[in-house]
Amino acid sequence: MEDTTNGVPQVIIVGGGFAGLWATRGLARAAVQVTLVDRRNHHLFQPLLYQVATAGLSAPDIAAPLRHILRRQQNAEVRLGEVTRIDATRRVVGLADGTELGYDYLVVTSGATHGYFGHDDWAVHAPGLKTLDDAFLIRRRLLIAFERAEAATEPAEREAWLSFAVVGGGPTGVELAGTMAEIAHHTLRREFRHIDPAAAKVRLVEAGPRVLASFPASLSAAAQRQLEKLGVEVSTGIPVNGITAEGYRLGEQFVPARTVLWAAGVAASPLGASLPATTDRAGRVQVEADLSVPGHPEIFVAGDLASLQQDGRPVPGVAPAAKQMGAYVAHAIRMRLQGRTPSAFRYRDHGNLATIGRMAAVVDLRGWRFSGLLAWWFWLAAHVFFLIGFRNRIVVLINWAWAYFTYQRHARIIHDPPS
Amino acid sequence: MEDTTNGVPQVIIVGGGFAGLWATRGLARAAVQVTLVDRRNHHLFQPLLYQVATAGLSAPDIAAPLRHILRRQQNAEVRLGEVTRIDATRRVVGLADGTELGYDYLVVTSGATHGYFGHDDWAVHAPGLKTLDDAFLIRRRLLIAFERAEAATEPAEREAWLSFAVVGGGPTGVELAGTMAEIAHHTLRREFRHIDPAAAKVRLVEAGPRVLASFPASLSAAAQRQLEKLGVEVSTGIPVNGITAEGYRLGEQFVPARTVLWAAGVAASPLGASLPATTDRAGRVQVEADLSVPGHPEIFVAGDLASLQQDGRPVPGVAPAAKQMGAYVAHAIRMRLQGRTPSAFRYRDHGNLATIGRMAAVVDLRGWRFSGLLAWWFWLAAHVFFLIGFRNRIVVLINWAWAYFTYQRHARIIHDPPS
Repeated sequence: MEDTTNGVPQVIIVGGGFAGLWATRGLARAAVQVTLVDRRNHHLFQPLLYQVATAGLSAPDIAAPLRHILRRQQNAEVRLGEVTRIDATRRVVGLADGTELGYDYLVVTSGATHGYFGHDDWAVHAPGLKTLDDAFLIRRRLLIAFERAEAATEPAEREAWLSFAVVGGGPTGVELAGTMAEIAHHTLRREFRHIDPAAAKVRLVEAGPRVLASFPASLSAAAQRQLEKLGVEVSTGIPVNGITAEGYRLGEQFVPARTVLWAAGVAASPLGASLPATTDRAGRVQVEADLSVPGHPEIFVAGDLASLQQDGRPVPGVAPAAKQMGAYVAHAIRMRLQGRTPSAFRYRDHGNLATIGRMAAVVDLRGWRFSGLLAWWFWLAAHVFFLIGFRNRIVVLINWAWAYFTYQRHARIIHDPPS
Repeated sequence: MEDTTNGVPQVIIVGGGFAGLWATRGLARAAVQVTLVDRRNHHLFQPLLYQVATAGLSAPDIAAPLRHILRRQQNAEVRLGEVTRIDATRRVVGLADGTELGYDYLVVTSGATHGYFGHDDWAVHAPGLKTLDDAFLIRRRLLIAFERAEAATEPAEREAWLSFAVVGGGPTGVELAGTMAEIAHHTLRREFRHIDPAAAKVRLVEAGPRVLASFPASLSAAAQRQLEKLGVEVSTGIPVNGITAEGYRLGEQFVPARTVLWAAGVAASPLGASLPATTDRAGRVQVEADLSVPGHPEIFVAGDLASLQQDGRPVPGVAPAAKQMGAYVAHAIRMRLQGRTPSAFRYRDHGNLATIGRMAAVVDLRGWRFSGLLAWWFWLAAHVFFLIGFRNRIVVLINWAWAYFTYQRHARIIHDPPS
């Protein structure tokens, strides 16, 4: 076990997403030594990941090296590595390479990944979107589908390659379906000689009664109208109960589709299970009001991995909640160091935005609800503002302005030759 | 075999690099049907590929989909696929998926890849730089090396991770070494806590007597001085005769280095061997003065795959030569269609540029020779000008301006977790 204590309390933060990064920054002036451990070397601006998956932005537009973000925070270091074990008795975390790191405070923010409700065999046919690698895989499948359709000699085969489905009508599913329709109807126009990309069918499949269920019903209806205007077929009320390489089964009907994307389920990081705590059905860790693990005031869980009720409703797994939790944990640790007891965490809900596609979005700001072009500009401004780093904002804006006026998507690059 | 002739002469162009793309465009107004076949969906601006490998640019900055570039050329179509066979007797090419495409004229521009002079076992330890995948692999190795050094507990291990070598002192080797030195000395400053990245050793190893051997001796000397000023150790006159995961052997001496890059040898595409023609030692196809294959006036070879002597010297494997050859082949096909005989291809050498790193380059314009800052600006202007597509130029300029003033490199993203 590495000993780097020197008497200064050691804080280990697992995961460099919104929760982990905000926790790290919140400890900048505390008399602690922070080690941020992540499997990846970058912080990812997850709300725009669908743009990488749909070839609108490139990876560096929405990601920045954690080391670079934290280079001026003298009490923080970044460790590239995968935490595989947590030993709460000995107060150490174990990395995949065998290293053990000791802690006085531990903050676990390893987030969530896609869940297939027990149908793990669907994963290979219907990839989900959580990491840059997921985004590249999806981008590749979308672009290759049109290439296969162009080369197809049988009409049925061509149709199956031009049939796309997104399972799950939450914000990610809506974004993906809306953008895919834009690609088919506008971006690829004139580029093929044997197919008309605009003939592609893009279907959004939601098992529940309406899309964007976390929004008021009027905005769900507005979202569905906007999706249909963009050329997306919306199906609600029937669950997908089978996915193969050839297509998916919707209730009793089999729909041929060579490209199916998954935006329906979320499962917590497996690291939650190695904590001495109760997890909910999705694997999230049930935390105290101060986000600590019951019986372990030195262990905190923040972000998508935390399960917490507030006013009878669960705190949602969204970026603002993760940032607030991260900042709160830093505050709680500072209080504890001073021998004080932090007051309970309160999630402040500033509103809810979802984008749908070109000039289409819905906004719900504590009762002030609107949709369409104005909502889209509002969404755009908010997301560019929150993107980390000055350079990114400028380049992302240029890319978007370019894409907006030309319908082009500059990142339509398939890196490796198709197998 | 697909029959799409309709009486119009079919031209198949294999490869969408400079030669293939310029040949396709040159046929825009000819009464032919052109099919451009490439394993990848994009044209790559190869002269800036080293910037992707060293995290200065992202892939879409220097690549554009072939379909997009050619969308307005009505007599051209793009086929994503790998040509695995050429049957000059039946006049068909065979794709990896079993499809056969018939041709009246065939233009083979499948280029070159790295060659290891018979030491193919070195490839896994010392990757070369030809494709975007190569660039991502190299980027990943460079960034991971510093991470491993940071986590190392043994001094010898740390030193080996901080020891970098580039084998081959041609333009690519010089670019890579110069940029790696900049990364170590500037970009990563302040980002690590247990190592000083500036302590990294970057060595450029050239077996011949001087770097940039295709330039006049005075510019080779200037390049070596500029490299040394950037912090690169230059070794000339001793060949590398062994490469393992632990390092490389230089003459009799073994040098520990966990990161070795290969920029020393080139081997022609294996497709050259399936043509009814003589190939040289590097696998290039010996062509007639009109770039056709002897005895097959309907088959042309252009770009890096062609071997041609002019005024007693070989036409070099550089981008301007590939473009000129591609444009010439289009001209030759147009002449043949009119029953005329094209005059011989002439390579016009407009000069030779090489960049070395920050504010350092050498320029040789038919006797007008200069180096340093002015040469760097000249190199930059020329390369931005030649980049395909308006959007790319603007974004690339912003990225470069940003990198220039801040020493930052925005694409320092490791996509997948290290194994």
